Amino acid sequence: MRLLVVNSNTTEAVTERIAGEARRAAAAGTEVTAVTAPFGPRLVVTAADAQVAGTATLAALGAARGSYDAAIIACFGDPGLDAAKERAGVPVLGISEAAFHAAAMLGRRFGVVCFARALVPMYEGCLARQGLGARCAGFRAGPDFTGDAGTVAEERAAMVAALVDDAVRLDGADVVIIAGGPLAGLARSLAPRAPVPLIDGVAAAVALAEALVRLAPSLPRREAGPAVGLAAGLSALFA
Amino acid sequence: MRLLVVNSNTTEAVTERIAGEARRAAAAGTEVTAVTAPFGPRLVVTAADAQVAGTATLAALGAARGSYDAAIIACFGDPGLDAAKERAGVPVLGISEAAFHAAAMLGRRFGVVCFARALVPMYEGCLARQGLGARCAGFRAGPDFTGDAGTVAEERAAMVAALVDDAVRLDGADVVIIAGGPLAGLARSLAPRAPVPLIDGVAAAVALAEALVRLAPSLPRREAGPAVGLAAGLSALFA
Amino acid sequence: MRLLVVNSNTTEAVTERIAGEARRAAAAGTEVTAVTAPFGPRLVVTAADAQVAGTATLAALGAARGSYDAAIIACFGDPGLDAAKERAGVPVLGISEAAFHAAAMLGRRFGVVCFARALVPMYEGCLARQGLGARCAGFRAGPDFTGDAGTVAEERAAMVAALVDDAVRLDGADVVIIAGGPLAGLARSLAPRAPVPLIDGVAAAVALAEALVRLAPSLPRREAGPAVGLAAGLSALFA
Amino acid sequence: MRLLVVNSNTTEAVTERIAGEARRAAAAGTEVTAVTAPFGPRLVVTAADAQVAGTATLAALGAARGSYDAAIIACFGDPGLDAAKERAGVPVLGISEAAFHAAAMLGRRFGVVCFARALVPMYEGCLARQGLGARCAGFRAGPDFTGDAGTVAEERAAMVAALVDDAVRLDGADVVIIAGGPLAGLARSLAPRAPVPLIDGVAAAVALAEALVRLAPSLPRREAGPAVGLAAGLSALFA
Amino acid sequence: MRLLVVNSNTTEAVTERIAGEARRAAAAGTEVTAVTAPFGPRLVVTAADAQVAGTATLAALGAARGSYDAAIIACFGDPGLDAAKERAGVPVLGISEAAFHAAAMLGRRFGVVCFARALVPMYEGCLARQGLGARCAGFRAGPDFTGDAGTVAEERAAMVAALVDDAVRLDGADVVIIAGGPLAGLARSLAPRAPVPLIDGVAAAVALAEALVRLAPSLPRREAGPAVGLAAGLSALFA
Amino acid sequence: MRLLVVNSNTTEAVTERIAGEARRAAAAGTEVTAVTAPFGPRLVVTAADAQVAGTATLAALGAARGSYDAAIIACFGDPGLDAAKERAGVPVLGISEAAFHAAAMLGRRFGVVCFARALVPMYEGCLARQGLGARCAGFRAGPDFTGDAGTVAEERAAMVAALVDDAVRLDGADVVIIAGGPLAGLARSLAPRAPVPLIDGVAAAVALAEALVRLAPSLPRREAGPAVGLAAGLSALFA
Repeated sequence: MRLLVVNSNTTEAVTERIAGEARRAAAAGTEVTAVTAPFGPRLVVTAADAQVAGTATLAALGAARGSYDAAIIACFGDPGLDAAKERAGVPVLGISEAAFHAAAMLGRRFGVVCFARALVPMYEGCLARQGLGARCAGFRAGPDFTGDAGTVAEERAAMVAALVDDAVRLDGADVVIIAGGPLAGLARSLAPRAPVPLIDGVAAAVALAEALVRLAPSLPRREAGPAVGLAAGLSALFA
Repeated sequence: MRLLVVNSNTTEAVTERIAGEARRAAAAGTEVTAVTAPFGPRLVVTAADAQVAGTATLAALGAARGSYDAAIIACFGDPGLDAAKERAGVPVLGISEAAFHAAAMLGRRFGVVCFARALVPMYEGCLARQGLGARCAGFRAGPDFTGDAGTVAEERAAMVAALVDDAVRLDGADVVIIAGGPLAGLARSLAPRAPVPLIDGVAAAVALAEALVRLAPSLPRREAGPAVGLAAGLSALFA
Repeated sequence: MRLLVVNSNTTEAVTERIAGEARRAAAAGTEVTAVTAPFGPRLVVTAADAQVAGTATLAALGAARGSYDAAIIACFGDPGLDAAKERAGVPVLGISEAAFHAAAMLGRRFGVVCFARALVPMYEGCLARQGLGARCAGFRAGPDFTGDAGTVAEERAAMVAALVDDAVRLDGADVVIIAGGPLAGLARSLAPRAPVPLIDGVAAAVALAEALVRLAPSLPRREAGPAVGLAAGLSALFA
Repeated sequence: MRLLVVNSNTTEAVTERIAGEARRAAAAGTEVTAVTAPFGPRLVVTAADAQVAGTATLAALGAARGSYDAAIIACFGDPGLDAAKERAGVPVLGISEAAFHAAAMLGRRFGVVCFARALVPMYEGCLARQGLGARCAGFRAGPDFTGDAGTVAEERAAMVAALVDDAVRLDGADVVIIAGGPLAGLARSLAPRAPVPLIDGVAAAVALAEALVRLAPSLPRREAGPAVGLAAGLSALFA
Repeated sequence: MRLLVVNSNTTEAVTERIAGEARRAAAAGTEVTAVTAPFGPRLVVTAADAQVAGTATLAALGAARGSYDAAIIACFGDPGLDAAKERAGVPVLGISEAAFHAAAMLGRRFGVVCFARALVPMYEGCLARQGLGARCAGFRAGPDFTGDAGTVAEERAAMVAALVDDAVRLDGADVVIIAGGPLAGLARSLAPRAPVPLIDGVAAAVALAEALVRLAPSLPRREAGPAVGLAAGLSALFA
Repeated sequence: MRLLVVNSNTTEAVTERIAGEARRAAAAGTEVTAVTAPFGPRLVVTAADAQVAGTATLAALGAARGSYDAAIIACFGDPGLDAAKERAGVPVLGISEAAFHAAAMLGRRFGVVCFARALVPMYEGCLARQGLGARCAGFRAGPDFTGDAGTVAEERAAMVAALVDDAVRLDGADVVIIAGGPLAGLARSLAPRAPVPLIDGVAAAVALAEALVRLAPSLPRREAGPAVGLAAGLSALFA
């Protein structure tokens, strides 16, 4: 199975981190290709970031069209997710979507830990889109972050571990999601000392995408009407 | 007051129709400028359409930055609305958003009539975003439409009038929204024979935007981080 | 346009305060008339207060029938609002209703600040009636108040400003409503130092009522059946 | 135990009907007194009716203050219910409230049958106030009614029986409420041929009021502030 | 009236406590029989406990079939409640169910106090099943408990009283439920010093069961299909 | 990976059908063992059925304890699911749970088709437990069924196909779940002619269980307190 992983932000170091976790999580026969959004924000935080990153993600999906059996949008805001699902013809999962569903199947109430509070509204929006708000025990977030997205996983590892404990002890979470593309892989390293299972969105998306491809290898594409002035990648997706 | 109206699709005839209704609805001192999205779908129907149209709408808002005191996104899917609100520094209203709030203040339960059933999921998404689902008596829609968005208002006027009656009689609506940029102005012409008030999204957005500018003439802009590869209009909005 | 503003409590000093803010908020061509409820509580706090004040508000609306193009119920509990909408034949807005809708169009999640915690349940009920609970970031309130409703705006101005900061910093509000007829005008004076837009219910109701009159200058009146023993104002409204 | 039953409308024939069912439903030691609202609509249908009837109901409760151990508001719109609960110092139940709770304890999903569709919005509002909407299988209603509220129970008995069948067969109700003060007693006569239990709001309120008096014979009264110009009954309740 | 009270756990001391409170709460003509679950956990805390206790409760109900006019499942998790309602042919109430409905009729927002936090998720599940979550002001619970369920009421009485005060003062509850079969009778002893009415689930269930038997003395039994290998009590209930 | 599949009803022919579909759906390295509930109903339809089947399912899981890396409760009512998750120490999925999550990841709104309307309330309860109600486009069901659960898949295949079309055309479903253990495998045979992807609960549970085992190979077991009188299988699970 060929799996395309799109990093929706434009920080290459994050793409590499995501690719690493995706490959660790993949089954034997899965071939992972990771690409970076062709344009847009360095880090996706605000609604404006997500709007632009969503279009960039579609362009990346379109540019690689035909070369994958499933795709993952590896950005916790799930930018462009509904649009991608309509047009891809194969399963597409956002890492936020995947983490919420995996957590809901592993526990009764999941916590969500993210590295900066500015990210919370975006994640709340993703949760509402999935309709799983009643399963969430709450969000825990660190203070604002202005550093390098490529190294935040190391810089804030201890803080994230402490927030996991808060989610379990204060919010009653019985499984905790470590949210955010820049934290890909952190759940794996924190898991041995965590009191409950930790979910990495990238790993969840890889495992669930492999499952969905077996359940529904091809999907209907919703008709798109005519459009003008689209860049190359988008044109490919709309065609 | 200077009001920018963006038609998020790329059909000029729809821009003209929207501009006409906006000017009819505007107060004496309001100067209306209408622009068409610089790229994207001819008609916004699907999530993929809305994703691309949202970015095109941001580009249009950015290109005209500094020349308006409020802006209207004149497309019933409200593409790019949250992003535009973050970055514009002045009130921005979607015509769906405006219609829902105006209807909620004029009646207890509003109906929504649209010219083609394929549009309903997009409108339902807008309604959910506003959080006003409990105030909606239901949607009524015509069959699929593949004709010219520029003339659908005339072609389907009788059908829309019949759907208004259904919304009132069968769904219990006490006010009805005539949804969709391509139908701009139709509520005005159907109103004399309608059993309840009819809401035109463009007219509602114009009147409410005028009100909001008086209540909050300037708004904070949410900080945007660095981004790469943005086209000119987007760059202006992100700067 | 002739706008009637009803103060639903029986404290004349509050009526004057409301009238002042309504006139500051009104457009050039709007003529504001403010009246005081003919009977009922000095301050509307409890459900029993609101029940009686609602009937008194209807009596005031009925007594002035025919002399206004829109009306505002200037009491944050919106007493008698649904009944007034049924019978008035013109747009009627409650200041709670208006504040919630204006705030929802200006931000993603609004906070509500009120001067005494005893008022919160009433405001929560109004919010639920509007169906906008999902847009609310929370309520912040001062301790119980037993002083003079006519001067509470001055006495508690600093406390309200501090509660605004809490709503923004702790609850994540990006717009804040300063709730309560007795605080009319306070948002205007606090705005220059506030980190987010502040909404005054009276000002919002004036601006939105002007907008709605243009969108729907006359509204259907729901049929009333026979009734007995009504006081004069009520009789006029029921006729 | 002394039980006061207030008919919130001003049709004496309905008061008699309600009194009859209340006495049939009462336990041996319960003494039922039934009174009619001192003013207001002949039949409570609209929000304006309910607003005025609520104040009239409070006046009736106040006029009899001290003479009852529990009270019932025998009007399906539950007019004045929250206010009455605040001020009475003893249990007060609305017949809508009582019917919803009794039905929720006897079945999984209850249907509601009412004699005229114009009543449905009022009942829906009561259901929302109780928070039990998720337990309701739906409403079934007859066409508009302009006859005599005192004899509608006989005139529409067959129609109500047919609507009960619809509620069971089409909506999946496993218990059905026969709604409305003017239908008091009809559930009792239709019960022998009904496929599921039928709930009469008056009978439910009597039995539940007797239960609540034993669980909480006296209740705190919420403080009321000063008020002016109240009629005698209201003054007694507010004192 | 013959009332069967089933203690769903297997601690006899709790059965005796429940029986005592049930008899204190019962009307003159009510004959109370209390039985203990024939197998299962000493205390019902987890979902696994509730699953087994539910089957044991059905077995107890089946073993006594024909000897009662109503039954109470006297365990706050309401184990086996839906199943029992289907098969009993007479009213069956859980003490959680009864407490929630009684509290909802006596106040606007009820608090729930329980003696150990480990019990909260089970009670939350019961509340969700009843659909009354919007009426709940919140849960207050003591630390984990590993002592004797038969004497926890005495050991933790002071702690429960303090939690009641928190529920009123911090959560705004205007009525408070003292939750849990092992606390049966505690509400009665704490009531004289409590600021709001306290609800005992057993007492509420007794009073409400007496009311329901008068409203619906017999109920339809849902058809059961064939089953194999059932123990004696279950067989009786399924027959 | 060793996967235990428990058929919660006691019809061996259904166990065989489920086992067949589980093996078709399993990945190369997965070893499927299927067992039948040791006691209980032939078909799980009612709440009483589900209560007993849940305990029987726990007994089956306990009897095989230590011999599986994940387990599936192959009955659409998900009997005993929460209890099993607490005690198993490895991932456990219900086929209803799995189908809902898989469908939510493959489409925007899923329909549910079941072979008999009597099953719908049970499935609705499962959906509510998962919290995914907002993602469901509705249920479609055939008339009551009293035949052989072992052959209903063949008998009602054409009816199910027609209900799938209704779910797509009338309810707007973009993915449809074929619900019920006795229909295991039917989705696979109907898929080639279906307009949208069809989800088989057993196949979904197998694929998702394989994914979850990789994400969380071992899970914490919630402490169980002492219990008495448990049959052998239950004792093993509680130990």
